[in-house]
Amino acid sequence: MIPNRLQLLRQKMADHDIHALIIPTSDFHDTEYVCDYFGARKHFSGFTGSAGVLVVLDDQAGLWTDGRYFIQAAKELQNTGVDLMKMGMKETPSISQYILENVKPGQKVAFDGRCVSMQDFESYQKDFADKDLEIVTDLDLAGEAWPDRPALPASKTFHYEDKYTGKSVEDKLAEVRAIMKDKGARSHVTSKIDEVAWLYNLRADDIPSFPVALAYTLLTENGGALYIDDSRLDEVSRKLLEDNGIEIKPYDAIYEDVETLEGPVLLEKDFINSRIGRAVKKPLWDDNPIQLLKACKNPVEVDGFKEAHKRDAVAVIKFWKWLEEEMAAGHPVTEISAREHLGKLRQEQPEFLEDSFETIAAYGPNAAMAHYHPDEENPVPLEAHGFFLVDSGGHYLPGTTDITRTFVMGPITDEERDGFTRVLKGHINLAKAVFMKGARGLNLDLFARQPLWAEGQDFNHGTGHGVGAMLSVHEGPNGIRWRIVPERKDSCVLDVGMVTSDEPGLYEEGKFGIRHENLLVVAPYKETEYGEFLKHDVLTMVPFDVRGLNLDLMSDEEIDWLNNYHKTVYDTIAPRLSQKEAAWLKEKTAPIHR
Amino acid sequence: MIPNRLQLLRQKMADHDIHALIIPTSDFHDTEYVCDYFGARKHFSGFTGSAGVLVVLDDQAGLWTDGRYFIQAAKELQNTGVDLMKMGMKETPSISQYILENVKPGQKVAFDGRCVSMQDFESYQKDFADKDLEIVTDLDLAGEAWPDRPALPASKTFHYEDKYTGKSVEDKLAEVRAIMKDKGARSHVTSKIDEVAWLYNLRADDIPSFPVALAYTLLTENGGALYIDDSRLDEVSRKLLEDNGIEIKPYDAIYEDVETLEGPVLLEKDFINSRIGRAVKKPLWDDNPIQLLKACKNPVEVDGFKEAHKRDAVAVIKFWKWLEEEMAAGHPVTEISAREHLGKLRQEQPEFLEDSFETIAAYGPNAAMAHYHPDEENPVPLEAHGFFLVDSGGHYLPGTTDITRTFVMGPITDEERDGFTRVLKGHINLAKAVFMKGARGLNLDLFARQPLWAEGQDFNHGTGHGVGAMLSVHEGPNGIRWRIVPERKDSCVLDVGMVTSDEPGLYEEGKFGIRHENLLVVAPYKETEYGEFLKHDVLTMVPFDVRGLNLDLMSDEEIDWLNNYHKTVYDTIAPRLSQKEAAWLKEKTAPIHR
Repeated sequence: MIPNRLQLLRQKMADHDIHALIIPTSDFHDTEYVCDYFGARKHFSGFTGSAGVLVVLDDQAGLWTDGRYFIQAAKELQNTGVDLMKMGMKETPSISQYILENVKPGQKVAFDGRCVSMQDFESYQKDFADKDLEIVTDLDLAGEAWPDRPALPASKTFHYEDKYTGKSVEDKLAEVRAIMKDKGARSHVTSKIDEVAWLYNLRADDIPSFPVALAYTLLTENGGALYIDDSRLDEVSRKLLEDNGIEIKPYDAIYEDVETLEGPVLLEKDFINSRIGRAVKKPLWDDNPIQLLKACKNPVEVDGFKEAHKRDAVAVIKFWKWLEEEMAAGHPVTEISAREHLGKLRQEQPEFLEDSFETIAAYGPNAAMAHYHPDEENPVPLEAHGFFLVDSGGHYLPGTTDITRTFVMGPITDEERDGFTRVLKGHINLAKAVFMKGARGLNLDLFARQPLWAEGQDFNHGTGHGVGAMLSVHEGPNGIRWRIVPERKDSCVLDVGMVTSDEPGLYEEGKFGIRHENLLVVAPYKETEYGEFLKHDVLTMVPFDVRGLNLDLMSDEEIDWLNNYHKTVYDTIAPRLSQKEAAWLKEKTAPIHR
Repeated sequence: MIPNRLQLLRQKMADHDIHALIIPTSDFHDTEYVCDYFGARKHFSGFTGSAGVLVVLDDQAGLWTDGRYFIQAAKELQNTGVDLMKMGMKETPSISQYILENVKPGQKVAFDGRCVSMQDFESYQKDFADKDLEIVTDLDLAGEAWPDRPALPASKTFHYEDKYTGKSVEDKLAEVRAIMKDKGARSHVTSKIDEVAWLYNLRADDIPSFPVALAYTLLTENGGALYIDDSRLDEVSRKLLEDNGIEIKPYDAIYEDVETLEGPVLLEKDFINSRIGRAVKKPLWDDNPIQLLKACKNPVEVDGFKEAHKRDAVAVIKFWKWLEEEMAAGHPVTEISAREHLGKLRQEQPEFLEDSFETIAAYGPNAAMAHYHPDEENPVPLEAHGFFLVDSGGHYLPGTTDITRTFVMGPITDEERDGFTRVLKGHINLAKAVFMKGARGLNLDLFARQPLWAEGQDFNHGTGHGVGAMLSVHEGPNGIRWRIVPERKDSCVLDVGMVTSDEPGLYEEGKFGIRHENLLVVAPYKETEYGEFLKHDVLTMVPFDVRGLNLDLMSDEEIDWLNNYHKTVYDTIAPRLSQKEAAWLKEKTAPIHR
């Protein structure tokens, strides 16, 4: 099947005299998870992972992906004619090297300029200059060779009310325009769909767990346009846009419009798609103004997050109680049935929209796999020992949640217990750290890792990611990691209202996986003659499973923090529970002592 | 006096048609503290602080300096005709702005290109392009207008033996050339005097507390040259250079030689002086190869540092005992007399060369001043209450030390006690942190600040600086600070053998100053399937004054660390003391309990 598809694709390449085609996993908006319309990389390679780049040459093809996917990709690429290119391995050439080695000087290389950021475009341009390769970006060859391509999503939009957003479209437009003015820009274009959604208080259902619409916006000093198929717009939003002087134009019309912009146009190289970036006559490369405004939740949004987390806590606490009772009764529970039950409990909560990402429910050694996907045909039954890791979250109209709990199903080994304890120590130390204004996730990360590093252990992922308000559950520019990774752009200075996850973990292949995750929101702490200090407030309101702890490894301060947290959880959530549920929660939140 | 000097200077400016002259505080080698020959800024402004830039225009002049010096500079600049320009204040123009505002288009601006780094030259060039100003860099106008200018230093060099350096000149040359080759450079030039000293195992006495010679070096694939007045060279070094194919050339000859270099020349923009940087035809801008090699002390150097710290501990412990006894006996002790006695005790130690910086000995509120210089005419007597802060260090042939202790002179306030305790908590938490290879000071800094930040307190300086081996007591590229400050270049990835200070503090103006400083050296910790982990070993071997502690604020782990450290101090140093001294140290290192 794949060879036939590639044959068709190579015909189209030949029609246009193209000798190398790059197909990234991306849409026109630099979105983390793409919808089916943008599944060309999967369609032409057979590889189903969430990240990878396919490169097709005249007589060979390669698929670049990272360590998470080496095993899966090797299996899926068998007999496709596509070679696996293991990223991060010394012997693996870069995409540019591979193309430079196999294409003759002056030949043409193509990719859809809309699916590649300006930053990446310039990097290819630099690489290919050596051999004088011509870059063609205005063709959609994958589309031409994909007869049964799924349609672009076209869900109906809805107005996301000011009682949730805390800020009107009028005020947001004024804020963005003030930044534009400050930077000397006469207009601003963004192709980021969460930024468009934030700016116009607009939501939709184009991508699972990401309640927004595929759209662009162009903003000028006095006007602007939203680029979206007109039929998709709800009436409230249409009126609101009209009142604010924002035109509604066809999705594709952005590309013609940007060519006509006269003054400096504010654009961010990492985020803007290169077809737009290159069409602009006078680009002013700088930070996207909306990103930081969006990240700093206003007081109404923070209150919304708190309320969403209370509702979410009710669902997760009921889930845990159900899980214990089912197991105690000897009823069969599987990873899949548990996940489904949790989903049902969330759906019962008021103003619940959808899961904020696909729930990870992994029992025992399965939890050691970073991107575990259960085999739905053969559900794994839970047993009365070891850990059950559940990482899940919801979009509620007032806010978005993301929580991981590692449940103790029965007896555990000393190794499991000590690991569980050290991960929680790290979680607590990060949560209780205070910081002077100016601090970044880079400065805080080691609070979470120190208890593990002291034992020569580590987890191979960031400690925290920013969380959007009814947008993407992963957003920048805030985040918590220890290495400087410039291209991630998630290590900004932390400021009041930013929501970030606190999720250290420990993964022992073939044995177990542990993760403890709460969401935190930055809040004022103290202002003194030394400066302005900030802290994190905990949003998540669900107890940790203290049966997993080795109290000998914990400091008094850590135990105090945990007891205080559990008291707050009980006081906050018990009033929303039945008497029986509250009594159960009382036990789960009882103070612990050495 | 200053007006007359400025008048003469302006005559010379007029002779060369110069309308703005920039005089930085710098020598030709980007050295932190300059010798008298490079005192032009002081000579023509009257300002004696360690940092500042003088700008002289036709009819006005300005002196830029930072917050440490605002009060002192205001006093010293009175009636000089030089205006104080307070750096960091909103209303203060930058040097370039000031010049651009006061000089006509096309006019000439001058500075000595040898005293300005390539990086700064390019920044001026960019600024002045707007008004088409011509930059003149080959004149030494300050020198022309300074008849009684002190001579360049010309101390005799000495060979720094391999038993101390642990690496021969031959091996060092091979290492540097390997890096040159790797980067595709055919030669390398450095104007950093500590790098020259390191490369040739050469020391001298040109600058107080910085035992090196003013010199440059040029290294090619097979040869090279050391630029230094021939008469200054000792015979051992002369022979060694000859054996290694390094020519000895006059100090100034570097400037002609670099013009003749054909292949790519490896240079670092931040460090190379701009006259050299601009004379090179094919510069290859990259990191200075010697800096990192120099920072990672080899095992012989680490052993040397340990031995130097033992000798230094003997001096400091004897000093503390003397101080207590003098005070108990009611003898008058002043900041000055204490400093002198400490100096004498260091001089008694074997292979002591000189202080590694000017001792800070500050009693009571004086210690709150960041750059306290005692009035030698009116020595401040020590009293039997409050704190006495002593920050000092020595160059011993085997290694360099830097230690701060805050001595408790008698009763202290609760505020002093709690501050003393929190600073020590931070010191301990940083010292005991372990870290995966790849971590930087940026990641570790908050361990030191967290106990202070929790109370809304802070110290307004870095937590740690790199320390050279019989070179500068301040060196990069390692350091510990929390803010990203690119131009400081002191936040590199930490690696085995790097020596860094751990010196948090707390300063309450008009009340007290506290600082606790040890030197740490990076050592291997663990290698596991998760990666390579490192730790810090403590070099300094002097007890902290536990009478300043509020044990209720300390965790069990912190008290354990302190008791273990004190036990190590006693076990290590007591054998080098008299019986009486050892008994005294026993008391000072006795375990503490809550």
